[in-house]
Amino acid sequence: MPTRWYNILPDLPEPLPPVLHPGTKQPVTPDDLAPLFPMGLIMQEFSPERYIEIPEEVQVIYRTWRPTILYRAHRLEKHLDTPAKIFYKYEGTSQAGSHKLNTAVAQAYYNKMEGTRRIATETGAGQWGSALAMGCRFFDIELKVYMVRISYNQKPYRRVMMEAWGAHCVPSPSPDTKAGRDMLAKDPDCPGSLGLAISEAVEDAALRDDTHYSLGSVLNHVLLHQTIIGEETRLQMEIADAYPDIIVGCMGGGSNFAGQFIPWMRDKLSGAKPDLQIIGVEPASCPTLTRGPYAYDFGDVAGLTPLLKMYTLGHGFIPPPVHAGGLRYHGMAPIICHLHKLGLVEARAEHQLATFKAGITFARTEGILSAPEPMHAIKVVIDEALKCRESGEAKTILLAHSGHGHVDLGAYEAYLSGKLEDYAFPEDKLKESLAELPEV
Amino acid sequence: MPTRWYNILPDLPEPLPPVLHPGTKQPVTPDDLAPLFPMGLIMQEFSPERYIEIPEEVQVIYRTWRPTILYRAHRLEKHLDTPAKIFYKYEGTSQAGSHKLNTAVAQAYYNKMEGTRRIATETGAGQWGSALAMGCRFFDIELKVYMVRISYNQKPYRRVMMEAWGAHCVPSPSPDTKAGRDMLAKDPDCPGSLGLAISEAVEDAALRDDTHYSLGSVLNHVLLHQTIIGEETRLQMEIADAYPDIIVGCMGGGSNFAGQFIPWMRDKLSGAKPDLQIIGVEPASCPTLTRGPYAYDFGDVAGLTPLLKMYTLGHGFIPPPVHAGGLRYHGMAPIICHLHKLGLVEARAEHQLATFKAGITFARTEGILSAPEPMHAIKVVIDEALKCRESGEAKTILLAHSGHGHVDLGAYEAYLSGKLEDYAFPEDKLKESLAELPEV
Repeated sequence: MPTRWYNILPDLPEPLPPVLHPGTKQPVTPDDLAPLFPMGLIMQEFSPERYIEIPEEVQVIYRTWRPTILYRAHRLEKHLDTPAKIFYKYEGTSQAGSHKLNTAVAQAYYNKMEGTRRIATETGAGQWGSALAMGCRFFDIELKVYMVRISYNQKPYRRVMMEAWGAHCVPSPSPDTKAGRDMLAKDPDCPGSLGLAISEAVEDAALRDDTHYSLGSVLNHVLLHQTIIGEETRLQMEIADAYPDIIVGCMGGGSNFAGQFIPWMRDKLSGAKPDLQIIGVEPASCPTLTRGPYAYDFGDVAGLTPLLKMYTLGHGFIPPPVHAGGLRYHGMAPIICHLHKLGLVEARAEHQLATFKAGITFARTEGILSAPEPMHAIKVVIDEALKCRESGEAKTILLAHSGHGHVDLGAYEAYLSGKLEDYAFPEDKLKESLAELPEV
Repeated sequence: MPTRWYNILPDLPEPLPPVLHPGTKQPVTPDDLAPLFPMGLIMQEFSPERYIEIPEEVQVIYRTWRPTILYRAHRLEKHLDTPAKIFYKYEGTSQAGSHKLNTAVAQAYYNKMEGTRRIATETGAGQWGSALAMGCRFFDIELKVYMVRISYNQKPYRRVMMEAWGAHCVPSPSPDTKAGRDMLAKDPDCPGSLGLAISEAVEDAALRDDTHYSLGSVLNHVLLHQTIIGEETRLQMEIADAYPDIIVGCMGGGSNFAGQFIPWMRDKLSGAKPDLQIIGVEPASCPTLTRGPYAYDFGDVAGLTPLLKMYTLGHGFIPPPVHAGGLRYHGMAPIICHLHKLGLVEARAEHQLATFKAGITFARTEGILSAPEPMHAIKVVIDEALKCRESGEAKTILLAHSGHGHVDLGAYEAYLSGKLEDYAFPEDKLKESLAELPEV
């Protein structure tokens, strides 16, 4: 297992556009972020250091599930009759079932080091909330999770996981915050959204001295913690005497995808592997990179967060209720957006039914029941492998597989019984939400 | 990863009582079993060989999730403030989520080698059915699963897993067999039982030329395949420079427990570790070893199977609906029963609420969300560790942890919300069912 994270900031060909203060529109300083995050994480957000040592206490917990397995997908290759070599790095064997635990443990640690007694966060389908519930439990920190109401009602089992680990979980919008109360006054039946839940958690943390806020994706320090995935994969592929031509991952906030590709991006930037193809896959119903403009926007609905330069569908955009709840976010990690703008990362958008078809093919060949999010990446891996069958090229394809679908079996049932549907992209809503982009 | 299974039959201090033909009451011959099983498995059932090589094709699939991790439960030890050293071998990272895949893959392989095109089996809560669904899919064998109706209705997600892997699953009693039709005529609302589902699957296999039957526990060859767990643990504990004083596992049919302890039983029998304590844990509401007589009985309700010498609550006994569906069986593996009779294996019975309390403690210290079955073993591990705190002894305790509880979160919810209940043992029903034991 690698013992350090890789920070891409000093290696970027052009510097990342700064994060702006929502009031002054000036670049934020570490002090601006201090009410929300511990200084250990804030320093990582801006760090010029190429490598950051993983604290010993974090390593000890990582080792309870890491290194995760790098698989060669022999059975899938055979099924597709492709000359391509398919590898997948599977994060589903962590106790919380996804890659989220990599940053949850690190964030809980840095908070504990600075005496944080309580954390507030949001969660969509519940992957992040459950991972942070375990992270906080391990460092004896109280956790409150604002969970998007539609998921809270439709997917109770992720909530139960959080409660099993001792966290307190409420549906968002909730009466516990001003952002929540305002929305409930406007629409008592509001199904909620990730952006709104973020507003609630940020408000909670900003108003309480004993409480910090924690985000499960998007920010630089979150992507940093996830580079353990790619660093580990590099060591494993070296043993397998293989090197990827294509890396594919799903993107919601982008942390699993970036955690895998960032350590390989070094070689693309240095010229060691200039033709490395890096493909992020998003839902066709929430097509941030494939349809949104590159602009400054808030990370949340209420406009409480700093402004991030990113591809965005507008902070007021509420995506259709696809089962891949982790991909239902209006924005994307600024590092990924920057690299996409520079032409270094590709983006594709896929419809729900096609991703489930790919997910079932994967289950019946490789055995793993994937969450709906990584099914998006699987769809593109299969596409690329079939292209190799046409062309006869034996490309090496690396799939970043973020986690299992054991808590998503209701979605499997809907698909297998023919009840799952695709959603048309709501063009009219996009127009509305883009009209609300903040002026910078 | 070990490359051979260990067969305890030649090392038993006294030979196992023979399996009897239900008609003639004479010991069954391999030919008697040929309508149900492929000869490869039948030969293992009676094998005098101490070690049996794991076929290369089975090893290749085992390696997609094996070796599984042996953990040291440092955080649980600290929480209990015990000098005991607690280790646990965790089988929950297999694609199907439990140890069942170890034998599912092997059974599918031996069937495939002899040209079996279709298999019929039963499942209770669904762990076995889903594991065999994946095993059969990997060897391209059609699978029909008779699933206990109450579980089919209450726990639909295990059925969805089976279907995701391509198996056909029906609730038992079903109209597809005589055993099922007879029961439905008597009681159209019958919730079913594992013994009845076995009757249906055995009848299905016996009547069709292209179909074999497959059992997920109890039989010698099933326990044989599970010894990969204990053999692997031995190698891992050697690296950790540790040796168990106590081994604890939960027992339904007994295959996970036996798979762990059988490879260590060698040392107890040879005198290398005579004081090794081996403890099996069963539900207080289905207390086979702790309350049943040691007698010949059928493995199923309809009396279609051969007669096995085992502790039994009577083949007509329907256990209360505890969430640990995998432990709701009237009998027990003959090898375990024999060793218990000889005083080499202990048995304890635990109530549901106490096991969930232990399971939550485990989740909050070790992170893993356990299935209700292994919570029974966790309860006893904690008891033993607390005894060590009293006595000051630094015993080494090894827990056989059979799998995750991701599909059991409804039970977690019931427990966390205070709705879970214990069941009194139905003494009157035991009396009735024991009156029906076959005469031998």
